[in-house]
Amino acid sequence: MSKPLNVAILGATGAVGTELLALLAERNFPIAQLKLLASANSAGKQIDFGSQSIEVEEVQVNSFDGVDIVLASAGGSTSKQWAAAAVEAGAVMIDNSSAFRMHPQVPLVVPEVNPQAAANHQGIIANPNCTTILMNLAVWPLHQIKPVKRIVASTYQSASGAGARAMNELKQNAQQVLDGETPQPQILPYQLAFNLFLHNSELDEQGYCTEEMKMVNETRKIFSDPKIQITATCVRVPVLRAHSEAINLEFAEPFDTESARAAIAKAPGVKLVEDFAKNYFPMPIDASGQDDVLVGRIRQDISNPNALELWLSGDQIRKGAALNAVQIAELLIEQDLVRVNA
Amino acid sequence: MSKPLNVAILGATGAVGTELLALLAERNFPIAQLKLLASANSAGKQIDFGSQSIEVEEVQVNSFDGVDIVLASAGGSTSKQWAAAAVEAGAVMIDNSSAFRMHPQVPLVVPEVNPQAAANHQGIIANPNCTTILMNLAVWPLHQIKPVKRIVASTYQSASGAGARAMNELKQNAQQVLDGETPQPQILPYQLAFNLFLHNSELDEQGYCTEEMKMVNETRKIFSDPKIQITATCVRVPVLRAHSEAINLEFAEPFDTESARAAIAKAPGVKLVEDFAKNYFPMPIDASGQDDVLVGRIRQDISNPNALELWLSGDQIRKGAALNAVQIAELLIEQDLVRVNA
Repeated sequence: MSKPLNVAILGATGAVGTELLALLAERNFPIAQLKLLASANSAGKQIDFGSQSIEVEEVQVNSFDGVDIVLASAGGSTSKQWAAAAVEAGAVMIDNSSAFRMHPQVPLVVPEVNPQAAANHQGIIANPNCTTILMNLAVWPLHQIKPVKRIVASTYQSASGAGARAMNELKQNAQQVLDGETPQPQILPYQLAFNLFLHNSELDEQGYCTEEMKMVNETRKIFSDPKIQITATCVRVPVLRAHSEAINLEFAEPFDTESARAAIAKAPGVKLVEDFAKNYFPMPIDASGQDDVLVGRIRQDISNPNALELWLSGDQIRKGAALNAVQIAELLIEQDLVRVNA
Repeated sequence: MSKPLNVAILGATGAVGTELLALLAERNFPIAQLKLLASANSAGKQIDFGSQSIEVEEVQVNSFDGVDIVLASAGGSTSKQWAAAAVEAGAVMIDNSSAFRMHPQVPLVVPEVNPQAAANHQGIIANPNCTTILMNLAVWPLHQIKPVKRIVASTYQSASGAGARAMNELKQNAQQVLDGETPQPQILPYQLAFNLFLHNSELDEQGYCTEEMKMVNETRKIFSDPKIQITATCVRVPVLRAHSEAINLEFAEPFDTESARAAIAKAPGVKLVEDFAKNYFPMPIDASGQDDVLVGRIRQDISNPNALELWLSGDQIRKGAALNAVQIAELLIEQDLVRVNA
């Protein structure tokens, strides 16, 4: 790769921040200097990166001086607070939050799907919602062969989507249930251990929650297809870090399963995992820690000759967040879209 | 109720058998004599029923002499083995297994949906699949107003559907994961703790598993509607004893949500549970131990003007199995369909 860059991670101590650090090291991302930024609470912590130990700094208005790329994963309000400072300092901010995703001047990029969109950035590139990324990776290879008309998605989302503290709470609450105690969840709205609940993001007047509408609106933007019809039911399940999704796809005409299977098998970012003889298909424990989204059990929908059913599991922290962000950064380097600071 | 009956429970020591006993007591079912039958392994165990302690007997060819109603929940092969003996002895067998469900001469009954079907019994009445019962209770009130054309269902099925030993294995494996160990499941095909997997029943040549095809075929039989189109994705999740389902319903024309809500609110066997302001909807821990199936988050599907989305949680052991069987027995008494032995 090219000239090493000055990189900052905003939200370095969270679940996604931790994974960003691991991925930058693992993928030999060309780093000149790495800054770890977080709130005042986390400032002063030492975090290992390769052979270095880096102190976490409190993010401030001059934190972005000399920074080329900011990987932000500290939530929407933090991204909104610091985006202008980062862009003014000449950095490109790759933002994991939902703050800018639907902004018409902000590209929303899944590198395997719409890498060309990155070229139009004006300092901010948004990383899509995790559930959306996973679904898009599986659906895009089929959509390119025959356009998808309608998607009915049901999700099985892990605790990691609510952050590292939610993962810890799931484990603590599970232990309490096993010990015969009644958990009192603090991070999640309801007990998740041995239970599940509809995703608790804000509901709109149609009764859809924000998470479901992200799948609808972000997919339309990423696919550049405002007409694709999508409905989703998002559910939080007691799994630690990989999301699964049951996806029903309707086309204008039949889509034979062998063609669909072949398209998934050769598509980037997804891995066909199905062994019908062994009744073995994607599972969260197998998807955890993997870059690829596992896709399988591709079936002709017996209720509709023009529909297919498929099932996927993908690492929510990795491809659903951190990996996609690092891939966007790599794409910026490849396409010479980083305005490298002097 | 009428004259007390001689009742036998076949499979008295399993998860459903235990619940059958509790329900017979709770509902003051008119029992003259209660026989507890099981395999040789369980024979000799003492089980409490009200103030009595009843010894479990090994099921034998003469076990059904003088028995009026057999509640069978010991699996399909056991039901097949003993059905003829029970019927020849003059008993009515209410069978929880899948052995006879699709037999054209065996009624398949959900008392809130098709009580009239029981009248045609010839000694055996089948209790439907648990996932099917729960879905049917929620869909039937709507189907009576405007016929459902197509159902797309995704399930979130608890360990109890695989029996009491699977529930124990889920707890044991969860403890192992919390202790940093790697579980080695024996009852379930894969680790269920902090994981999930597609239902592992046998796959047909179309790639649908038996559980999914039960939802398709049994619903058609119960609704007496061979044309209703159904597709399902059945998933086992790390929950102990209630199943949940995300259900997309397509009609021939729009079905307004207020009418749907009103129909669910007044239908028997279901309870409307939705608080949009509090983001509170049916959850397995709330459905556990309840007779009613909790239904909520009824939404106009934004992807199809003729479709509705709904969500449910229902106790798999109770309404999904034991309660429905006891309700069938009560129906037989009410309709004078028990051929009471002298």
